[in-house]
Amino acid sequence: MTTTLVDNIGLLVTHDEERPERTDAALVIEDGVIAWVGEGSPAADERVDAGGRCVIPGFVDSHSHLVFAGDRSDEFEARMAGRAYEAGGIRRTVRLTRAATDEQLLDNARRLVAEARAQGTTTIEIKSGYGLSVEDEERSVRLAALLTPEVTFLGAHVVPEGMGRDEYVDLVVGGMLDACAPHARWIDVFCETGAFTVEESRRILSAGIERGLGARVHAGQLGESDGVRLAVELGAASVDHCTFLSDDDVEALAGSDTVATLLPGAEFSTRQPYPDARRLLDAGATVALACDCNPGSSFTTSMPLMVALAVREMGMTPAEALRAATLGGAAALRRDDVGHLRVGARADLVLLDAPTYVHLAYRPGVPLVVGTLAG
Amino acid sequence: MTTTLVDNIGLLVTHDEERPERTDAALVIEDGVIAWVGEGSPAADERVDAGGRCVIPGFVDSHSHLVFAGDRSDEFEARMAGRAYEAGGIRRTVRLTRAATDEQLLDNARRLVAEARAQGTTTIEIKSGYGLSVEDEERSVRLAALLTPEVTFLGAHVVPEGMGRDEYVDLVVGGMLDACAPHARWIDVFCETGAFTVEESRRILSAGIERGLGARVHAGQLGESDGVRLAVELGAASVDHCTFLSDDDVEALAGSDTVATLLPGAEFSTRQPYPDARRLLDAGATVALACDCNPGSSFTTSMPLMVALAVREMGMTPAEALRAATLGGAAALRRDDVGHLRVGARADLVLLDAPTYVHLAYRPGVPLVVGTLAG
Repeated sequence: MTTTLVDNIGLLVTHDEERPERTDAALVIEDGVIAWVGEGSPAADERVDAGGRCVIPGFVDSHSHLVFAGDRSDEFEARMAGRAYEAGGIRRTVRLTRAATDEQLLDNARRLVAEARAQGTTTIEIKSGYGLSVEDEERSVRLAALLTPEVTFLGAHVVPEGMGRDEYVDLVVGGMLDACAPHARWIDVFCETGAFTVEESRRILSAGIERGLGARVHAGQLGESDGVRLAVELGAASVDHCTFLSDDDVEALAGSDTVATLLPGAEFSTRQPYPDARRLLDAGATVALACDCNPGSSFTTSMPLMVALAVREMGMTPAEALRAATLGGAAALRRDDVGHLRVGARADLVLLDAPTYVHLAYRPGVPLVVGTLAG
Repeated sequence: MTTTLVDNIGLLVTHDEERPERTDAALVIEDGVIAWVGEGSPAADERVDAGGRCVIPGFVDSHSHLVFAGDRSDEFEARMAGRAYEAGGIRRTVRLTRAATDEQLLDNARRLVAEARAQGTTTIEIKSGYGLSVEDEERSVRLAALLTPEVTFLGAHVVPEGMGRDEYVDLVVGGMLDACAPHARWIDVFCETGAFTVEESRRILSAGIERGLGARVHAGQLGESDGVRLAVELGAASVDHCTFLSDDDVEALAGSDTVATLLPGAEFSTRQPYPDARRLLDAGATVALACDCNPGSSFTTSMPLMVALAVREMGMTPAEALRAATLGGAAALRRDDVGHLRVGARADLVLLDAPTYVHLAYRPGVPLVVGTLAG
């Protein structure tokens, strides 16, 4: 049983209820778990000197789509120039993903996980959704499970080319769910105009819940929809995007355990208005921040940028944004062992080359993560 | 005379007039200068394999304030929360800078130059302006000159505490200019409400020009002002900020050799509206992008983020933004040896972990710079 003391910490963010931030504390890690937090420097087998820097919990990125092939930078470029671009969006990535080998998909996803890790992400959720056939969805969740325990089956991303929607929903709740459920912890639906209706979403999520999967929902990205209240009604862990919310949606979220996960990378990359985090926080909702890394609408793995955008664009304080990017993400994954550094937490620590986490927003774009320990 | 071949370049951006971007080219470096660009792989003493990645000219960051001490993250945090913060702004940094040792100032500036370099900046301008006494301004330009040839004397940043404005302007054009001119290439004035008037700015810039310094002007950050036309009238190399411009200003810039340098880091960090790069480009003005790195209003060294913000917020295409961040910055410093990779240029190359430079905006926040060569 090896113990490691981390001391000389300029500012330690534990998210402890009484003392969420401390300037006087060191911590001891035992077998990858936080065993002690306090003043002084107890004896330990190893010592890490934080050099007076800020130590925060590793980021919990609760929304990503990393199992894919190809690049859509041309589509991004056209969108930014205001030009129409008819190359197929998600369906284009589906074609390329289906054509790729397991090794190519895994290499690409592994590279992106490493990129996220280098920026301080120690827990990441990965969705399927670019397979859209039993075989390709099964492959996507199976490969994702090699990289993270937080695997989400998103067969209901869009209706694939060449299939009727009823036929496809039948497949999703039938053979596709059978094939994917063993590899996944979560089921998700893109409940939005152009994707799946509220009734289709209810059917799909309910089928997943019956199979023991937890529910998550994409809703409110392109406009208000009943998808948000569906998520709350079904006890989903999270409803993601929440860019467009009615007052009833906000009230429903605030009175529930469903986290509102905001994905400002998508607004950055599609030039849409940012979600109003302030409104959600003021109502009492739990808010998470995530990257939504995907090749179409948000090809970033940078949780520090999400924090900076939340402060610049979404009315969050730096402390609220950091909390949403760590503890909020953990709540969105119903995890109590990550997103904080209280005793008993996984020892997922990020060392910032800065005296405080405020610098994540104060120094936008600067790679401040100088080290990551993961329990 | 050592020669280095750089080949297997997926996309090479030279800014050559006929072929600004090439997918078929390698290049040869001889003694830190681009000696050859073309197809094939000529013999050379050394070889760098770009691994199919994109190679761009190093960024030219033509506007920074790196000689300072202290941190104003508390002020940033208050501003983002909409709270008043009366801790003194620039004058607070002046107090801390004056109290610091040469070694402290140089260490801090050197660290920031290295941080910028790691993000692809191979040419950087550094201003004084936190000394505001003969001794402290002289020290600032002298230390800056240890880090870059592009040193700017900005004694006219604000009027220091305890001095009348006429008295201070007399000092700037007198003993302070005498002390600073030997270390500087440029003179700059903050021509804005609350700083220096157009007439004071004219007097200060003219004095610098008489001493052989080139002129640069801060103007149009907080509102429209005659500072932009003053810059054009005096033949300034650049007028910086340009957030608020009248139609006459745009026309004057377009008909001149004065570059409009846009600093979106300042708008990010002060939550001001972004400048309209599209309007300037459409009128025919030369546009540069720079970081404005300083502890008060833009504490970033990330040229990649400036490119991403220019595309998201300012109406630039990725190609225009890259051009502004390289060739535009070089024009703003009246340099023809940097900002491009044509034969004869300094071999300042940046290797991106991406197939194209579009990824600088398509993948915001992700550290894509994997290598920098500097001639």
